[in-house]
Amino acid sequence: MQARQTLADIQHLLTTVLKAPTRWQGLAPFADTDGDLAAQVLDEAAKFVDSAIAPLQRSGDEEGCRFDGGQVHTPAGFRDAYQAFWQAGWPSLSCAPDDGGQGLPAVLECVLFEWLAGANHGWTMAPGLLHGAYECIKHHASAELKAQYLEKVATGEWLATMCLTEAHAGSDLGMVRTRGVPQPDGSARVNGSKIFISGGEHDLTDNIVHLVLARLPDAPAGPKGLSLFLVPKVLADGTRNAVVCERIEEKMGLHGSPTCVMRFDDATGWLVGERNKGLNAMFVMMNAARLHVGLQGIGLLEAAWQKASAYAAERRQMRAPGAKDTSLIQDHPAIRRILHTQRAWIDGGRVLAYHTALQLDVAKHSTDAGERAAAQRWCALVTPVLKAALTDQAFHGASACLQVFGGHGYVREWGIEQIVRDARVAMIYEGTNEIQAIDLLVRKVLADGGQGLGALLVSLPGAAPSPAASTRRHALVEITQTLAIAAQSDPELPYWVADDYLRAVALVLLEWAWAQIGAARPHRAEQSTAATDRWTPPAQAFAQWVLPEFDLRTTILRQRIAQAFEFRPQEAESA
Amino acid sequence: MQARQTLADIQHLLTTVLKAPTRWQGLAPFADTDGDLAAQVLDEAAKFVDSAIAPLQRSGDEEGCRFDGGQVHTPAGFRDAYQAFWQAGWPSLSCAPDDGGQGLPAVLECVLFEWLAGANHGWTMAPGLLHGAYECIKHHASAELKAQYLEKVATGEWLATMCLTEAHAGSDLGMVRTRGVPQPDGSARVNGSKIFISGGEHDLTDNIVHLVLARLPDAPAGPKGLSLFLVPKVLADGTRNAVVCERIEEKMGLHGSPTCVMRFDDATGWLVGERNKGLNAMFVMMNAARLHVGLQGIGLLEAAWQKASAYAAERRQMRAPGAKDTSLIQDHPAIRRILHTQRAWIDGGRVLAYHTALQLDVAKHSTDAGERAAAQRWCALVTPVLKAALTDQAFHGASACLQVFGGHGYVREWGIEQIVRDARVAMIYEGTNEIQAIDLLVRKVLADGGQGLGALLVSLPGAAPSPAASTRRHALVEITQTLAIAAQSDPELPYWVADDYLRAVALVLLEWAWAQIGAARPHRAEQSTAATDRWTPPAQAFAQWVLPEFDLRTTILRQRIAQAFEFRPQEAESA
Repeated sequence: MQARQTLADIQHLLTTVLKAPTRWQGLAPFADTDGDLAAQVLDEAAKFVDSAIAPLQRSGDEEGCRFDGGQVHTPAGFRDAYQAFWQAGWPSLSCAPDDGGQGLPAVLECVLFEWLAGANHGWTMAPGLLHGAYECIKHHASAELKAQYLEKVATGEWLATMCLTEAHAGSDLGMVRTRGVPQPDGSARVNGSKIFISGGEHDLTDNIVHLVLARLPDAPAGPKGLSLFLVPKVLADGTRNAVVCERIEEKMGLHGSPTCVMRFDDATGWLVGERNKGLNAMFVMMNAARLHVGLQGIGLLEAAWQKASAYAAERRQMRAPGAKDTSLIQDHPAIRRILHTQRAWIDGGRVLAYHTALQLDVAKHSTDAGERAAAQRWCALVTPVLKAALTDQAFHGASACLQVFGGHGYVREWGIEQIVRDARVAMIYEGTNEIQAIDLLVRKVLADGGQGLGALLVSLPGAAPSPAASTRRHALVEITQTLAIAAQSDPELPYWVADDYLRAVALVLLEWAWAQIGAARPHRAEQSTAATDRWTPPAQAFAQWVLPEFDLRTTILRQRIAQAFEFRPQEAESA
Repeated sequence: MQARQTLADIQHLLTTVLKAPTRWQGLAPFADTDGDLAAQVLDEAAKFVDSAIAPLQRSGDEEGCRFDGGQVHTPAGFRDAYQAFWQAGWPSLSCAPDDGGQGLPAVLECVLFEWLAGANHGWTMAPGLLHGAYECIKHHASAELKAQYLEKVATGEWLATMCLTEAHAGSDLGMVRTRGVPQPDGSARVNGSKIFISGGEHDLTDNIVHLVLARLPDAPAGPKGLSLFLVPKVLADGTRNAVVCERIEEKMGLHGSPTCVMRFDDATGWLVGERNKGLNAMFVMMNAARLHVGLQGIGLLEAAWQKASAYAAERRQMRAPGAKDTSLIQDHPAIRRILHTQRAWIDGGRVLAYHTALQLDVAKHSTDAGERAAAQRWCALVTPVLKAALTDQAFHGASACLQVFGGHGYVREWGIEQIVRDARVAMIYEGTNEIQAIDLLVRKVLADGGQGLGALLVSLPGAAPSPAASTRRHALVEITQTLAIAAQSDPELPYWVADDYLRAVALVLLEWAWAQIGAARPHRAEQSTAATDRWTPPAQAFAQWVLPEFDLRTTILRQRIAQAFEFRPQEAESA
């Protein structure tokens, strides 16, 4: 993927459509960050991504990571690229200046990581959890731990991991068995085994800071007995801690990222945050982490689209309808439909993701409590939608882009199949997409009877919705209300239809996003230029091929809700 | 995949639902093949697949094929398995007894190949084109060629390839440049380069029979100037022909099958069939070949379903709604929905595919011209639908099954990611799924103004459709008619909506298939047993989660047709 190829689009969305600089400049920490500075940062970021990271994508996949007696060797060039990355200050873009960061708005970091994922998903896994670890240490660690680790993690001089999953405890962290036993000196002995640890061991940095979920000896069972421990690979005195990488996984894709099985053998660690409140300490950064995964989806889909549209502009096969001679395949309607549909998701997805990133900063820094609450509501409700819908589209859309290549798409040479393989994981990690849907519907929407979602829908910024859009929003509110009632007699109901519900919300939000893009275009046809016409085919593709799914989802929801109203417990199996 | 696990299901569908033995016994060549014989054959086939082919699936993927100076080494065990396969007579199941075959109905061969693909897609590519080559040689080759090659290909002692694609000619065979120059002795010198040749070179058999599309010196340009040549790897005198494998492709999956770049360097070949009618000679076997790819889709999806449902029956995570303790994941609605939905496609798809296989035999062997014509119409219209819809579902459904495993699905260990990678190719080869949709809508349905499809829909066998099913069939007929009219003013229209049209047809056909399954069940609830209840969850999943897509597709079709009626040529870009 070429980040530079997206710069003008992203500037247009940030500046003209979302008026992002005006909005972040209303927040004290970013008052001095004007649009020009942001544009400069993005320009430099694009150069870095295109020159240092993108060239390692294919070789990273082919060479992969190598495990050798506890050591992990990343593919050639990965270490140099990472060293250049942190030394140039990129990891600390949105960290506080006091911690060694640049103090820039979160949305700029989001654009950077969208590009990085599109350019080289495997490499990007390494710094992917860094900002979360930074926030976690900053807000929960003791002063002593902060003194030792905060700046190293903020700047990215040391990388960080999240050690959550165990072999028997994947989606269900309540089953975690790793133990942390406090010692007289204030440290803890950590024992246990963790799996699926991205970057658990590697040669990119001199130290690795592990944040480990484990149980104190007296902890209650379940998720409320989990505490968080900081366990470094190398201790302050330079000795190696008892943290061992046992092996790395063979995976479908993401070969540039070592997915490690880690064993903690009386490792030395320190409690971060309160006892038994380890999940809280991690969940504060969950919205940002999930948003980043959604942005990975956008980056990967953009990468797939760039490859497919370049191929479609060169390859000739068959005559397009009405053509006299063999046509470029970009002239065939089936190909145009595939390409425009991906743009409908990428462009609309960017508006939603960047708007959400702005809300993250508003929720943190606004001086207006009502504004903070509204921003928090947006982030809580919209983040799972973006995580699930954008990663789903990344995989399925990348597969559609592979189809543009015909048989050539299935061979490695063109690189498109790598994107499909790499993209698949984002539907799983950071909470599977099914869990995102349950989080949205059960934990968030139904928890307040749908009031939060209703309030969000009526307060969507921008001009009044079109009559058709308004009808869809009302349909969603009405379905939410009947769902809440029906779920009382059929508690399984929300779990059957959570995916449909999430998709319906995603489509209403995307419709809003496309309305914002449309509102920023010149009103008179004669003012349209190549640059503004750029947005027309995806806008039409959204209306024509994407949005009709809303009716499909509401049909399924309504039918299943009707069934729930007839529900009798003795006939519980519903499909 | 375990073929044995599907035996009872398939017997039920063939015998009780489709009454297949009665139907094939009405055709002269199969009068003596009763249900018991067929059951024995399938029983033996299942044993062979499970014991000889399935165990090589994972090792075949991991080891892959190795290219070494023009030679191709298949993975360990592949040659022995193939030798056992042909020596037991499996390739010739439905070849004529006069040619060394067993003379059994096509549907039994279809079940065998469905299983083979599910058990080991890579290995199955080797014999996958054998039956087509057999038909091609049988119906088009000269008596001398037949004497030399027919029985060897019928029995599978020698394997065969189809050499169609060239680097610049993929979907567009009219651009083929390979040349065949007739020689005084009746042979031809073949020169050119072909790509994507499955099994172009290997160590499974002593000889390989290539069927090569090429141009005679005086041939007209385009597809009407293509002739077919038989070019063996080893000539009759035992010398090696000038056919060279230049390399094999690195692919997303299907590593057990060598995908070869083949060079013909003054190779000796012989014309098969008439000059310039090479495509006709290949197209006679196209319906059978495409049906086989659809069956691969079923086999792969069954394989994914078996893995996911076994995992879901063992893995415990989180409490299902209403449960007091951690549940098996098969009790979570989101998982049940995924599993039942795949069964809805597999079971319904089997009814359609097996019915189509029966029609292939009716079209060939019925003594009633009207019956033959109706069977030919069924095969022409339904085959592209099955090829596209079932391979699409194989990939997307396998991906859904991968999701059941969470993070474990993304690592190689469980084998589910291999199925996703392997399945992806079936959406591309034997005509991409987009080309299937255009074949259906443009070349077949609209070519006669929709009359053939209308006749097929009103003559669907079995009881009268439910009112809802009848409404859907009428909607499809009405859409076809307006589409035919609208296409006159907007020739691009069918090319934009061909995919939606194919999906709508697929869903109406699947609805018919599920009605057949339902009609074969006991009518009174008290007669239901575990065996009959087996069909209830997928029947409900079909109605609840799958069939609603019909309305989505018709909405998209109607909107785009309405737009076409407003079409003016100067505003041609429609999305």
